[in-house]
Amino acid sequence: MGKNIESNLANTPHFNPLNPQEFRKQAHEMVDFIADYYQNIDSYPVLSQVQPGYLRANLPQNAPSLPESLETILEDVKNQIIPGMTHWLSPNFFAFFPSTVSTAGFLGEMLCTCFNSVGFNWIASPAATELEMLLPKSFMFQGTGGGVIQNTTSEAILVTLIAARDKALDVDGSGNLNKFVVYASDQTHSTFAKACKMVGISPRNIRLIPTTIDAGFSLSPIQLKAAVEADMENGLVPLYLCVTLGTTSTTAVDPIELLAGVAKEHGMWVHVDAAYAGSACICPEFHHHLNGVELVDSLSLSPHKWLLSGLDCWVKNPTALVKALSTNPEYLRNKQSESDSVVDFKDWQVGTGRRFKSLRLWLIFRTYGVVNLQDHIRSDVGMAKIFEDFVRSDPRFEIVVPREFGLVCFRLNPDENFGSDYTELSNQKLLDWVNSTGRVYMTHTKAGGIYVLRFAVGATLTGDNHVVAAWKLIKEGADALLKTV
Amino acid sequence: MGKNIESNLANTPHFNPLNPQEFRKQAHEMVDFIADYYQNIDSYPVLSQVQPGYLRANLPQNAPSLPESLETILEDVKNQIIPGMTHWLSPNFFAFFPSTVSTAGFLGEMLCTCFNSVGFNWIASPAATELEMLLPKSFMFQGTGGGVIQNTTSEAILVTLIAARDKALDVDGSGNLNKFVVYASDQTHSTFAKACKMVGISPRNIRLIPTTIDAGFSLSPIQLKAAVEADMENGLVPLYLCVTLGTTSTTAVDPIELLAGVAKEHGMWVHVDAAYAGSACICPEFHHHLNGVELVDSLSLSPHKWLLSGLDCWVKNPTALVKALSTNPEYLRNKQSESDSVVDFKDWQVGTGRRFKSLRLWLIFRTYGVVNLQDHIRSDVGMAKIFEDFVRSDPRFEIVVPREFGLVCFRLNPDENFGSDYTELSNQKLLDWVNSTGRVYMTHTKAGGIYVLRFAVGATLTGDNHVVAAWKLIKEGADALLKTV
Repeated sequence: MGKNIESNLANTPHFNPLNPQEFRKQAHEMVDFIADYYQNIDSYPVLSQVQPGYLRANLPQNAPSLPESLETILEDVKNQIIPGMTHWLSPNFFAFFPSTVSTAGFLGEMLCTCFNSVGFNWIASPAATELEMLLPKSFMFQGTGGGVIQNTTSEAILVTLIAARDKALDVDGSGNLNKFVVYASDQTHSTFAKACKMVGISPRNIRLIPTTIDAGFSLSPIQLKAAVEADMENGLVPLYLCVTLGTTSTTAVDPIELLAGVAKEHGMWVHVDAAYAGSACICPEFHHHLNGVELVDSLSLSPHKWLLSGLDCWVKNPTALVKALSTNPEYLRNKQSESDSVVDFKDWQVGTGRRFKSLRLWLIFRTYGVVNLQDHIRSDVGMAKIFEDFVRSDPRFEIVVPREFGLVCFRLNPDENFGSDYTELSNQKLLDWVNSTGRVYMTHTKAGGIYVLRFAVGATLTGDNHVVAAWKLIKEGADALLKTV
Repeated sequence: MGKNIESNLANTPHFNPLNPQEFRKQAHEMVDFIADYYQNIDSYPVLSQVQPGYLRANLPQNAPSLPESLETILEDVKNQIIPGMTHWLSPNFFAFFPSTVSTAGFLGEMLCTCFNSVGFNWIASPAATELEMLLPKSFMFQGTGGGVIQNTTSEAILVTLIAARDKALDVDGSGNLNKFVVYASDQTHSTFAKACKMVGISPRNIRLIPTTIDAGFSLSPIQLKAAVEADMENGLVPLYLCVTLGTTSTTAVDPIELLAGVAKEHGMWVHVDAAYAGSACICPEFHHHLNGVELVDSLSLSPHKWLLSGLDCWVKNPTALVKALSTNPEYLRNKQSESDSVVDFKDWQVGTGRRFKSLRLWLIFRTYGVVNLQDHIRSDVGMAKIFEDFVRSDPRFEIVVPREFGLVCFRLNPDENFGSDYTELSNQKLLDWVNSTGRVYMTHTKAGGIYVLRFAVGATLTGDNHVVAAWKLIKEGADALLKTV
């Protein structure tokens, strides 16, 4: 009977959306499209100039019934999508922190998509798990634990918070979260408070300790100690400390060793959010910022911000993490997992599925070597230094906080005849004008109540000439603005 | 003084890891490498045959100081990585659920990597936000809300649980989670209980309602009603119901309309996890499974399982979600967000950053059209039907639950002379043998206490001939196994 079924099979070929010949042809076409985009990227307005809702008017709102050609679709990318892009890879992008990419990172992403493996456990893709386990050694975080690639810094903070919470609840036994307190500086990324809220920590129990401009917006161990002791006197339990290496506003660095010393006295989980500045620590001249890292429980960094790749998170002792996040449904059971000879990364993260993302960082390290990656960091720091010198050379401007990495925090000087509201307004006006030209994109922040312009160097294609041109444009804006006053 | 700085600039070119010419050359090389991989994929053992720890012995454990060539690296991919891959895209992959890919999905991923934009808010990439907002209309979920691409089903369940929890806590006012109860069937993916634990719901308050083989492992509205009423009598508060369209074990379908009817009487949040079977609903013959979807609060599906792309989540009314997950730090403030004329997707998800992932699904819809995507689903279902017919034609085997989509649940018949332990052991042995050949990869589950072999058709490259060959191999295994008894 099996034979009959077989001979009855229709011999019409199935629709094959992964025909290798077709793939080869179209992927080559896409490579040229992308290479052309990179070649011309300088010519696009870096900040998109479209109005809200622009796309709805320009693209069909329903999926078509019948296929369309790649040429038609790429025309729409060129004419409808690209004008609506804020070009993060433009050499004129100095906003937020950069989102870096590189040829090697791109190729790593292509390989990851090529295999399209879902490595929730070891057996589902041994190479994916094992390559990811090799990476932390190549990097900065040694010890008994390991590293795991999370999707975002937020997720790294979220899962370590859950691990810390569940560990503390186990000890406490009351099942009551209300006594646990978490600590960070007021400069910590907003994702920290968001993650605390997600895991059920009351906003009343989140201590964002004030920092000052005089201390470079760095978290003070003395203030941390005072806050912890006050909470303990009130019967509360210190749970988690988030230390930042390179804050989002001004790249302030919290002193790991001193802060971890305070926190560890009280059994807290210490996490280091090194999203931005962690990458710089591959250079010996920045490595001292990691002093004390052996004391902490976990550390996350975002290589996409400066190391040409995606996000990673290192965890020193994953036991608490695995305890909080492990699942073991029948449909995922297998001999290797049960023999305890392998790591199943699904138990280190929120989701079950995961892509083979370590290929990116692996390709980057091997293609460029540590020497070139150090050069890359240093050249960005060098360009930021050039920009800083420009700012210092013009008495109409001031540097708000000393520059340490690739970010320059500056502003139009407060004019003594006007109040701080006026200074803020002038700087806002200058920023809006600069961004409206489409020739440079910068963003702002407020730190210590001061409205600050942020010039973040780090887009992969940025060269000295772009920094020079950006400064000229800013001066031009200041000329016009101060003339009309 | 500015002039001096400028003229002092070193004119040595910076290290440029995104040189467009170099990118073009190397990316073309990678395209050919990948096309060759797809062309030869049939020849690799589908389940990796390596031993734990194999990679550590074969690759350098530290990042090199100096660059290596792409050729050297690709040699290592070929010789060290590929042997450690379980080839999810192999036409002989019938394990778990498939992770599909297509040329158009691949090109979409390349474009997403190309722009490398971080679309946390509208202004950071208007096109990324607006294209994502166009997609739900093209699909199944209409209404006042919208869709957002989450990283995983787990994350979709996590964020909707948080939204439901915070909304209920607001109403309740006690700040005490202990009275909230959540519901799902015992067939629900383990990620549901994990997400509940993450948000602080006690395992005591998670009701995984038993299902039966006679009801096709579908969640019974009558049983749900009974469970809810019993909890309410005990002073507990029903919070959240997770309905599954296509369970992981056996693709059971919970009846949305009847279940949502019960849940909505008590004000619960209803989420539909349509990870697997949701994609099938683009075919009219499966669309009835969505009856009642207008009653639910949120729905997630994983187009990577069957629609050649990544994961999406639709939320009917995002207010509660945004309330729970919104942040507004100074460094992300901008006019458009403050004017309320735009959507900032950072407030719909765990992380801040997000990639331009909608490009994938958009390219897939346009490149193939709805007609071909329906063909794709139907041809997989057709091949599963062929396999089902093979199984039914051999009296040594039985179909455990009726097949509805692309998954066939079967086993070697229990021999009346032996107990159920022996049946389980025989099926385990058969599975191990089949997988050890490297010619087919299947997995197992347990449902209603029965050890079941799962044959999941859906890998993009699978054709009739692979299904025929797989069945021959399984028969061969059964011949050998039953002869030696």
